[in-house]
Amino acid sequence: MALVVQKFGGTSVANLDRMRNVSELALRTQREGNQVVLIVSAMSGETNRLLGLAHQISATPDMRELDSLASTGEQVSAALVAMTIHQLGGKAKSFLGHQVRISTDAAYTKARIQNIEGSKLLQAVAGGSIAVVAGFQGIDPDGSITTLGRGGSDTTAVAIAAAIKADVCEIYTDVDGVYTTDPNICPSARKIDRISYEEMLELASLGAKVLQIRSVEVAMKYGVPVHVRSSFSDRTGTMVVGEEGFESVAVAGVAYDKGEAKVQLVRVNDKPGVVAKIFGMLAEQNVSVDMIIQSPSRGGGQTTDVTFTVAKTDLPRAKELIERTAAEYGSEPVEYDPDIVKVSIVGLGMRSHAGVAAKMFGILAGEGINIQAISTSEIKISCIIAAKYTELAVRALHEGFGLDKIPVV
Amino acid sequence: MALVVQKFGGTSVANLDRMRNVSELALRTQREGNQVVLIVSAMSGETNRLLGLAHQISATPDMRELDSLASTGEQVSAALVAMTIHQLGGKAKSFLGHQVRISTDAAYTKARIQNIEGSKLLQAVAGGSIAVVAGFQGIDPDGSITTLGRGGSDTTAVAIAAAIKADVCEIYTDVDGVYTTDPNICPSARKIDRISYEEMLELASLGAKVLQIRSVEVAMKYGVPVHVRSSFSDRTGTMVVGEEGFESVAVAGVAYDKGEAKVQLVRVNDKPGVVAKIFGMLAEQNVSVDMIIQSPSRGGGQTTDVTFTVAKTDLPRAKELIERTAAEYGSEPVEYDPDIVKVSIVGLGMRSHAGVAAKMFGILAGEGINIQAISTSEIKISCIIAAKYTELAVRALHEGFGLDKIPVV
Repeated sequence: MALVVQKFGGTSVANLDRMRNVSELALRTQREGNQVVLIVSAMSGETNRLLGLAHQISATPDMRELDSLASTGEQVSAALVAMTIHQLGGKAKSFLGHQVRISTDAAYTKARIQNIEGSKLLQAVAGGSIAVVAGFQGIDPDGSITTLGRGGSDTTAVAIAAAIKADVCEIYTDVDGVYTTDPNICPSARKIDRISYEEMLELASLGAKVLQIRSVEVAMKYGVPVHVRSSFSDRTGTMVVGEEGFESVAVAGVAYDKGEAKVQLVRVNDKPGVVAKIFGMLAEQNVSVDMIIQSPSRGGGQTTDVTFTVAKTDLPRAKELIERTAAEYGSEPVEYDPDIVKVSIVGLGMRSHAGVAAKMFGILAGEGINIQAISTSEIKISCIIAAKYTELAVRALHEGFGLDKIPVV
Repeated sequence: MALVVQKFGGTSVANLDRMRNVSELALRTQREGNQVVLIVSAMSGETNRLLGLAHQISATPDMRELDSLASTGEQVSAALVAMTIHQLGGKAKSFLGHQVRISTDAAYTKARIQNIEGSKLLQAVAGGSIAVVAGFQGIDPDGSITTLGRGGSDTTAVAIAAAIKADVCEIYTDVDGVYTTDPNICPSARKIDRISYEEMLELASLGAKVLQIRSVEVAMKYGVPVHVRSSFSDRTGTMVVGEEGFESVAVAGVAYDKGEAKVQLVRVNDKPGVVAKIFGMLAEQNVSVDMIIQSPSRGGGQTTDVTFTVAKTDLPRAKELIERTAAEYGSEPVEYDPDIVKVSIVGLGMRSHAGVAAKMFGILAGEGINIQAISTSEIKISCIIAAKYTELAVRALHEGFGLDKIPVV
């Protein structure tokens, strides 16, 4: 007998028919001798409908109220799914954040889970019920409802799996696993059977949307085996697990992210502290900067060029801040380029395989693609290139590193 | 400075525009130097939408889940109204049943309030916030969400007013107060300025839908002054208060209720206990019987005729039970008549004014209306008549008791 957490996203509970599928799947799992905790998202479209109402009231609605509002989406799903399980002859009980007791901090709209009481859920499943938990929500020390941010139900699922020491956390989604790259632009993309937390974390950070980043962090921290799989088929999906016993390949996947824009400050006075001041000011205003490159200006002299990327959504705010202060530091007119993409390769094996970066640059160069900026971590290399080369670059890297052929285990 | 509870029903918060009106009204009340606690219902139609989903799943959905589902309607309203108050420059904080701490029993869909913690609300209003409470909901000893039954937000409002010792509980509705009878069928109906809890209780029980019965019981028990008024005008509505200092009139109002059906058992064996058995069986199956008349059968002999009324919604169930057992007690074929109405007159003054009943029967007889059954309490008299006479009877009684003329104070 295993203790299984199953999480279903908004499309899997989009209507009563789909809820019936979810309920049948959970009951089947239970009949096979398992104890089942279900985590459900809001019916697809519901969260947007609710937030739409809020934004009709105010461009900046009160965040505590926003969370109380948005959390009703999952509450509705949990109740309806529990009813459906009853109707199918099973036992079920729904749980909200304050009923499980999912304690979070008070950072409304992006709260972090601090503690989960597993006892009520364990009691329910021991009594033969399927516990149906409303995802995405928690409760702060003051008793106010909080939400965990977009995709937060993944985090609810993994954190609950950790709290009740579940044998596996199954994340059901509309794709059948994690792919070596986006199958929409690269037909030879293959489903990955096993991937490490570290690689999954990089892929999620780099634009692969199959799992919320925070949920992978929690899975890694507590060693929760995560199984990403399709709610429309029985096939095994992708296991996200610790890196022990992995025959690590140099490159596990190729990711791309069109969400960034490039900012270029030309001929800034190259005095100590100037660059630090610019980024300090951006940080103060909560504009996160991703990649930074500093190089002496081409004309020579006491000036430097500074290039960096920010999220496209932050660009208007960043522009305003930069315009206001760039002159002060002697910069010439600032250049902005939103038509860029960040392509990345990720793989634990990079740590032991030499020459991976050189090979990546070579592949891009071979396609005539100019690299505008580079950033690396222990297990990933990212390049900024012109957005128009996205598909070309992804396909070339995918093939160049043999991802269309080699089994990734 | 007064502490004011204001309750707004579903039509008053039906959309964002109306929520703005509600918020402005509350802010105006606050600016006039009062502390304000708002109670809001679900946006009109929302509760039915949610229950409709549940009933698509099952004819008898799990009641615990039904309450968790239905309670989201008020949660959405409370959050949106609080946001609207913020947007208008005010301070507001929403509260759910489990946040206020409205403790109820575990009788899902018709829970009764057992205790209300007033401290958080008082803290919020003392800090300059308008406390916006989701009506209709509470929490049982196990932490499950409960609801108080249709119209339960009235009860939430009055019970909170009692708990925080509010100076007044204003119930905003789409009519401007309690009327001497239904203005839709009697154009000379007048708004009542003051009415006693006892009279209001009878009127509510007899079909006047302006206040939920339970809320009047709570108001009476704790002496909460209730002000029933229109959310669309500033005019004073109806004060529902204790009977002290009342110059009680014989008849305060005329009510009618088309929700009952008549059942007639003809020539039942008149042995001791037979009638008791019939009603015992109905009670066991939760069919409530309202009026009962027993009379010797016309043919004479050892048989009796028994006439009683049940709620029309209970009629199918009652029929089944009666058919099954009537033969056993020797009754001839049972007769059912759903085309009846119960017209009632209510007034504290009946206790001291003699001849009120006789006058009522005289007025109905004067219109050629046959009375099929009569029931009385200390302060009301009800008659069952054919439904087709509803309007005629109501108008005749309203005029006959001078309700179109005499100020009712």
